[in-house]
Amino acid sequence: MAAKPQLHTILSPRLLDIYDVSNSIVVIIDVFRATSTIATALYNGATRVIPVDSVDKCIQIGQHTGGVTAGERDGKIIPGLAHGNSPAEYPRDFIEGKTLVLTTTNGTKLLHMALQSGAETVVTGSFPNLGAVVNFLLAKNQNVFLACSAWKDRFNLEDSLFAGAVIEQVKDHFTIHCDSSLMAENLYQQHKNDLPEFIQKTTHWHRLAQYGLEADLIYCVTPNQANVLPLYRNGDLVVG
Amino acid sequence: MAAKPQLHTILSPRLLDIYDVSNSIVVIIDVFRATSTIATALYNGATRVIPVDSVDKCIQIGQHTGGVTAGERDGKIIPGLAHGNSPAEYPRDFIEGKTLVLTTTNGTKLLHMALQSGAETVVTGSFPNLGAVVNFLLAKNQNVFLACSAWKDRFNLEDSLFAGAVIEQVKDHFTIHCDSSLMAENLYQQHKNDLPEFIQKTTHWHRLAQYGLEADLIYCVTPNQANVLPLYRNGDLVVG
Repeated sequence: MAAKPQLHTILSPRLLDIYDVSNSIVVIIDVFRATSTIATALYNGATRVIPVDSVDKCIQIGQHTGGVTAGERDGKIIPGLAHGNSPAEYPRDFIEGKTLVLTTTNGTKLLHMALQSGAETVVTGSFPNLGAVVNFLLAKNQNVFLACSAWKDRFNLEDSLFAGAVIEQVKDHFTIHCDSSLMAENLYQQHKNDLPEFIQKTTHWHRLAQYGLEADLIYCVTPNQANVLPLYRNGDLVVG
Repeated sequence: MAAKPQLHTILSPRLLDIYDVSNSIVVIIDVFRATSTIATALYNGATRVIPVDSVDKCIQIGQHTGGVTAGERDGKIIPGLAHGNSPAEYPRDFIEGKTLVLTTTNGTKLLHMALQSGAETVVTGSFPNLGAVVNFLLAKNQNVFLACSAWKDRFNLEDSLFAGAVIEQVKDHFTIHCDSSLMAENLYQQHKNDLPEFIQKTTHWHRLAQYGLEADLIYCVTPNQANVLPLYRNGDLVVG
């Protein structure tokens, strides 16, 4: 019997280079809200999402591609961009057939770090596309890193909860010698039936709820409402 | 009413410099087994424990001070040193009145990093001296960082469990806007009544149990068996 592939969870971008991610699948997780928005836009028919790490690049690429530019800081649309970072802004009748150029801080940074570290395959994960991530990992049978975007490099609960939700469904098919993964699964098992209440304890909830984003955050912990797999290819995230 | 001081938990030495630890108390946590051994040696009458970050320094300082040199790699005493890293090696009839010169990898590194980062007060924490740490933090009423030594910079469960045990007892007296602390307390609340069983799931248990150290590890998660406060002063850890 062939050895099972390994699965690890990385709790902050600062911890990425402890691990050898080459020849592996890296799942970028930014539950509040970048990866939830990416899944939603693609599910609703966006042709592609281009993740960029600065506002200037977002504007440039938006002009070049004719795409919708989007990004927020502190819950407000960044001046010079057209839209924000809420999944609710990207229904089918708006985003279908369009390119979304999205600038975020934590998630986009980690995605580029994973590429630079030699990851073979980069996908994005969030509760809205939990099932698609699980099915992809089970089908590929390769080493996996669940990479949490965190907040300014600080551990956050919501990304770990998503890692735990993935682990619950795939653990029998992987070798897991990783305390971060054990913790994430433990946390998820404890709170999977009260996620909308539990996330109200997180620091991120307190930062975003003041901008009236509660409904957004509840959507972001609801599984399988936008069940596609965003797969990175040559600068774009497309449905894999 | 004066604002409560803040409490944060740092899950890996790699994450230390995200935080401003100056003018604060840093509790160094290395449950398996450095900080458990430090508390035990001091509780049993060691005059001081000198934490050093290399085997060469350990030998040099041992010769200079006439102290007991100690350190392990992979569960075995390091050649050139006299003793290992087990709390069971330091009963009163051996260690009383002596200096212990201890070299460890994860805990000692983090202790020196905290000093270099300007921490005002550095103490060490472990289940054997849980009560002493709690009482000290409650008495000082200053900002606190619970700093987990981790394993080669990777998150570990046992250090987080200890952070959670501290938080459970001090949380009403601190402002805690820190997901790492919420996670640690959550984990501890879930497992405080089955710690000896739960820690058998950790990666560190699997590394150390193969060397016959099970009884050591159970001791290291038993509260208040060596209830003193190791306080760093001019290169030494002494009873505070």
